[in-house]
Amino acid sequence: MESLRFLIDVALILFAAKIFGIIARKLHAPEVVGEIIAGLILGPAVIGIVNQSDFINKMAEIGVIMLMFEAGLTTDMKKLKATGLKATAIACAGVFVPIILGVILFMSFYGYGPIGSEQFIKGLFIGTLMAATSVSITVAALKELGKLNSTVGTTIVSAAIIDDVIVIVVLTFVLSAKGSGTSVWITTLKAIAFFAIAIVSGFIVYKAFKWLDARYEHTRRIPIAALCYCMFMAYVAERYFGIADITGAYVAGVVLCNLHDVKYVERKVDVSSYMVFAPIFFAGIGLKVSFENVNPTLLFFSVSFVIVACLGKIIGCGTTAKLCRFNWNDSLKIGIGMMTRGEVALITAQKGLHAGLITSDYFTAVILMILVSSILAPVLLKVLYKPKSA
Amino acid sequence: MESLRFLIDVALILFAAKIFGIIARKLHAPEVVGEIIAGLILGPAVIGIVNQSDFINKMAEIGVIMLMFEAGLTTDMKKLKATGLKATAIACAGVFVPIILGVILFMSFYGYGPIGSEQFIKGLFIGTLMAATSVSITVAALKELGKLNSTVGTTIVSAAIIDDVIVIVVLTFVLSAKGSGTSVWITTLKAIAFFAIAIVSGFIVYKAFKWLDARYEHTRRIPIAALCYCMFMAYVAERYFGIADITGAYVAGVVLCNLHDVKYVERKVDVSSYMVFAPIFFAGIGLKVSFENVNPTLLFFSVSFVIVACLGKIIGCGTTAKLCRFNWNDSLKIGIGMMTRGEVALITAQKGLHAGLITSDYFTAVILMILVSSILAPVLLKVLYKPKSA
Repeated sequence: MESLRFLIDVALILFAAKIFGIIARKLHAPEVVGEIIAGLILGPAVIGIVNQSDFINKMAEIGVIMLMFEAGLTTDMKKLKATGLKATAIACAGVFVPIILGVILFMSFYGYGPIGSEQFIKGLFIGTLMAATSVSITVAALKELGKLNSTVGTTIVSAAIIDDVIVIVVLTFVLSAKGSGTSVWITTLKAIAFFAIAIVSGFIVYKAFKWLDARYEHTRRIPIAALCYCMFMAYVAERYFGIADITGAYVAGVVLCNLHDVKYVERKVDVSSYMVFAPIFFAGIGLKVSFENVNPTLLFFSVSFVIVACLGKIIGCGTTAKLCRFNWNDSLKIGIGMMTRGEVALITAQKGLHAGLITSDYFTAVILMILVSSILAPVLLKVLYKPKSA
Repeated sequence: MESLRFLIDVALILFAAKIFGIIARKLHAPEVVGEIIAGLILGPAVIGIVNQSDFINKMAEIGVIMLMFEAGLTTDMKKLKATGLKATAIACAGVFVPIILGVILFMSFYGYGPIGSEQFIKGLFIGTLMAATSVSITVAALKELGKLNSTVGTTIVSAAIIDDVIVIVVLTFVLSAKGSGTSVWITTLKAIAFFAIAIVSGFIVYKAFKWLDARYEHTRRIPIAALCYCMFMAYVAERYFGIADITGAYVAGVVLCNLHDVKYVERKVDVSSYMVFAPIFFAGIGLKVSFENVNPTLLFFSVSFVIVACLGKIIGCGTTAKLCRFNWNDSLKIGIGMMTRGEVALITAQKGLHAGLITSDYFTAVILMILVSSILAPVLLKVLYKPKSA
């Protein structure tokens, strides 16, 4: 009735992701890096036997949602509360340092413009593109290292959530300065409303799950209901509150993290995740890369963009973490952990394209930023964690 | 970037399927029946908040492939060999009895035509529509009852595989009689070639997995590689040999069924299956039903079609099973187990539509046949198995 092409795409992705994941591990690199490279090789950038498709994109989206849900489920509430203030400071620096650097980068390439001018707003938008962290890759890397639940891990994840909120507010501000988009106040209020509603409804949901938990421990209905709740929150966050779906999924995980049976839920979600969805997400990053339409100027700009984007986060978040009394090693880990970018940067780029702030050429730079940061961050994190475990 | 509608669709399906599955079990009906009804209620037939989509269809396809793969993995090779001859006899009767009844039904509704006439060929096609068994629902029901691996279970599954092959040969014959489609000989040869290649390559694949098994017991790479092999075989079967994808998946499972670590593989596939894919497959059957464009004549024909289709299999397979020295109770179980229809009937209908043998009105009858047989068979099987377990 319909083509079964998607089956062979999924099989190729899962197989190549596993092979390259194993190779990566043999080379003492994190498995996720191998999985991203598997996608790069299968995709249009190298041999081109698998192309991005609507189906693959949707499977990948479920993959990243599961990943962030698991991060939420394994949250240590005490640590989350303890790191809250520090995470806020780190998130703020992680947004504003890249934005300032972005403006400078843009102007040094395409000319100066005074505050308020079109040129300035374009620069601001380039900065915003660099500001949106997406820590799913960091989460996967920390999970592999068994450090997701450490103070550093918790700080990174909560800073990323706050980062997401600040970025959408900044983005709204930039878009409204260009004359498109809604009011900044509405966006801010919607973001606050999301967390308020999530907390209040979260109590009710938690009670309901606790009741289920007590009556039906270790039955399938609990992980299935939890997964449904996660998908529901992911959808609601993005659809009605303008918050990224992965933030919604993480919040759903945090709501359920104190459940008695949380380990059972996490294990069931984890199996579905690593058997099918997560490798598709990681390989999907590599699949997006293509080297068509690349000219020298664009390449030079893209490379500068990627360097500035990575350094912006490392410097901004790292020094703030140091100011928050983390030691140098942990501060660097936080800076690097916050460096990863993902879907949110692409969505932001899409919005800028619609508003006429950038042309589609910039997508190359954004995808390169996602790719480089997604490969670099796990490798550097592993190196930084090594001395301790040795 | 793209609508997240699919997330809420998946969440709604999983949630409703679980709820209705639980309700079904409370009413002493099999869970799969509840899951099908969940789809019926969510879909256009009742409240219409979830529609069939390309994404849902593809997820459902992965679901049924996983299900048949699991059936293959849990196969008892000795039983499979022991039941081979009986299964062939049952499959033949299960194809030819419904075809004869289909011709009679069609002619009693739309007038007599001599052998070789257009009218006769149309009748033959209606019969073929009734002939294609799809035992995935039976597999799920037997699994729930813990009887998948019994002699009856093994007989049903292997008869269904043989049934699939006979039906594609008959279908090719009918289509070539209408002047479209390829030669019957080529179709037969391709089917034989598939099993020959599957057996030969199966030995090599089995050796490779045995090697993996010995070196890396209980590591993720084994179930992931197994799942990739299953998807590959499903794709190759349908794409290059005209055999249903679920048959390919089942064969892949049989190839791996003697693996030392088979239980581990099955468990990992099973979690992915019941957490996400299988409920989407079951609910997907209900989602396909819609009561638009139904008129009294069509309804009357459809109901007769469904009754004849169900009785054709029960009588054809049941009496042949009795002739093969099964007892009455087991013979009836086999007849009922072979009664379920699925995707293959829809694919056959699609081909008849292209060849001008039927109009799209007949899809209502086919979908009704799938729905009724999918609900009836598990319920009846549970009733038949009850006295034994009591």
